[in-house]
Amino acid sequence: MAGFNPLAPDHLGPTACMGEILAEIVATTVGAGFAEPQPLIGPYSSGAPAIFIDQCGRMGGSAAMIGAVGDDDFGRMNTDRLARDGVDVSAIAIHSSLPTGTAFVRYQNDGCRDFVFNMWTSAAGSLSWTPAVEDVIARAGHLHVVGTSLGHDHIWQMIERAAPLIKARGGTVSLDPNQRKELMKDTDGRFAKMIAQTDLLLPSDDELFLAANGVPEMGEADAIHAIFAQGVCEIVLKRGDVGATCFQSDGTVTNAPAFIVKEVDPTGAGDCFGGAYVAARRLGISVADALTYACAAGARNVSMRGPMEGAGMRAQLNRFIADTPRGAL
Amino acid sequence: MAGFNPLAPDHLGPTACMGEILAEIVATTVGAGFAEPQPLIGPYSSGAPAIFIDQCGRMGGSAAMIGAVGDDDFGRMNTDRLARDGVDVSAIAIHSSLPTGTAFVRYQNDGCRDFVFNMWTSAAGSLSWTPAVEDVIARAGHLHVVGTSLGHDHIWQMIERAAPLIKARGGTVSLDPNQRKELMKDTDGRFAKMIAQTDLLLPSDDELFLAANGVPEMGEADAIHAIFAQGVCEIVLKRGDVGATCFQSDGTVTNAPAFIVKEVDPTGAGDCFGGAYVAARRLGISVADALTYACAAGARNVSMRGPMEGAGMRAQLNRFIADTPRGAL
Repeated sequence: MAGFNPLAPDHLGPTACMGEILAEIVATTVGAGFAEPQPLIGPYSSGAPAIFIDQCGRMGGSAAMIGAVGDDDFGRMNTDRLARDGVDVSAIAIHSSLPTGTAFVRYQNDGCRDFVFNMWTSAAGSLSWTPAVEDVIARAGHLHVVGTSLGHDHIWQMIERAAPLIKARGGTVSLDPNQRKELMKDTDGRFAKMIAQTDLLLPSDDELFLAANGVPEMGEADAIHAIFAQGVCEIVLKRGDVGATCFQSDGTVTNAPAFIVKEVDPTGAGDCFGGAYVAARRLGISVADALTYACAAGARNVSMRGPMEGAGMRAQLNRFIADTPRGAL
Repeated sequence: MAGFNPLAPDHLGPTACMGEILAEIVATTVGAGFAEPQPLIGPYSSGAPAIFIDQCGRMGGSAAMIGAVGDDDFGRMNTDRLARDGVDVSAIAIHSSLPTGTAFVRYQNDGCRDFVFNMWTSAAGSLSWTPAVEDVIARAGHLHVVGTSLGHDHIWQMIERAAPLIKARGGTVSLDPNQRKELMKDTDGRFAKMIAQTDLLLPSDDELFLAANGVPEMGEADAIHAIFAQGVCEIVLKRGDVGATCFQSDGTVTNAPAFIVKEVDPTGAGDCFGGAYVAARRLGISVADALTYACAAGARNVSMRGPMEGAGMRAQLNRFIADTPRGAL
């Protein structure tokens, strides 16, 4: 039984996601930064919005990406990959002079990461409201927003323009806060404005309290209550390697334990989780089963190197679910 | 005996070079492009002007780099490297938002290379005439120009401003054409304007005929004559793995056979050759010995992976010269 579902059904139109599409290069040794030549592996398709939408497409949901890449191998790799996975790439612009964005990542001993980015100064930063974007938004049934986009003035303007258009035709909105406390100061109330338009919120751990405009001391129940008061109908709290919990505004609480895997590369886990969850829910799958798919998508992705190399087709996720032990929650 | 030397002596002030400073990432397998994740190695310090000036510094010549990097590990790696090798880095600007330029390189089976560049859309493209640049140019004894810079409007303006200032105080100019025929159409007569200000020209193979504004059919002797007629006093023709020949306007011709090495990575050979030659000549070393140092610097560099990892200190070059067999020319 699917029960209460705040998300617009898949047949209304694709889930649209906008933001950075990157080529990621990963250091294969652990250590500090990029001060000297070292073994690397890449380019991997990356960028939180691109990972989300790829997993959405692989899960079998209608999906469309809005972004910009350069006229180079890194751009073609990304658009080919997304198209292969069933994502509508008609609103991915190809910039004539700016390169595809890049992210170099190296893990330190303590699990922290060092980065060298070329993100908003790459083609990714040139994103604009083209006729192709207009067309996708006019057809979209859902908008997924990644919190990091809120810090980019132009993408924020595009989100502010797209969300009401999609909601006006019966579509819905999901938000993955995906941001650190220290980055939230400068967003000029954007996060609160975004929450007010959100149907499904997908916070990780303490992002729940940020979304509630509170502090961890307030407790989970009060935070959930405060977020529902802002109009959100469904909250999926990602608890990392513990699992996830869905809180619905009708009072239903559904827990899902995590799958037990050997972590190879944690990048992209939350985005795969979100992509699988949104696609599953829009396809009419129940909260319990959607959570299972989402946990499986996240766990499968961290078990492979590369930000979205482990994103699974629905059949692959079914196999993963059947074969993989789960913890307790 | 040093004989006729058209270059300003080292004590007049540093050899200045301006242009791109890059981080280079090299694919470790042979094949076409970057369409999928693959093993890489990097970042290596790179950029033709940076390679030239680094070898100039390692040879013991006074040297100063004019360029721009990002506020990132790739920029710090480059400035640290140049400073360590004795290069004045006071005129390397650190851009607050643009990243250090990058070049991904992969060799194909036929020796051709595939690239993904972020060059003039990186910090490298933000180069401007700062007080630090003014200061270096006011002290410089020589300007070395890399042909690729002629295609960049702003760097061309800086070269046009710097060259007369340096020449006015008794300094000299060298030019490495370092460009392909197909790139030369759009340079708006810049190449000819540059030749007219050049004391030492360092062409590779057929670039000799480009510099003579002719075609290979005209023959080497006529090309040399035509270039001397434009005011150049010394021409060092780089013949790759065959060796090099110096033609002087007083009629002297000096040949130098190449060193025989196993080629690991040809990138940067011509720039190391030039850096060693210009430094040696400005230090008062004879044409014959300067050619030997230049051939050694180029050969040593191609025997190591990375665009300037084989650039040698003068003592290292002496050892290389003593230990390495030479061909015939």
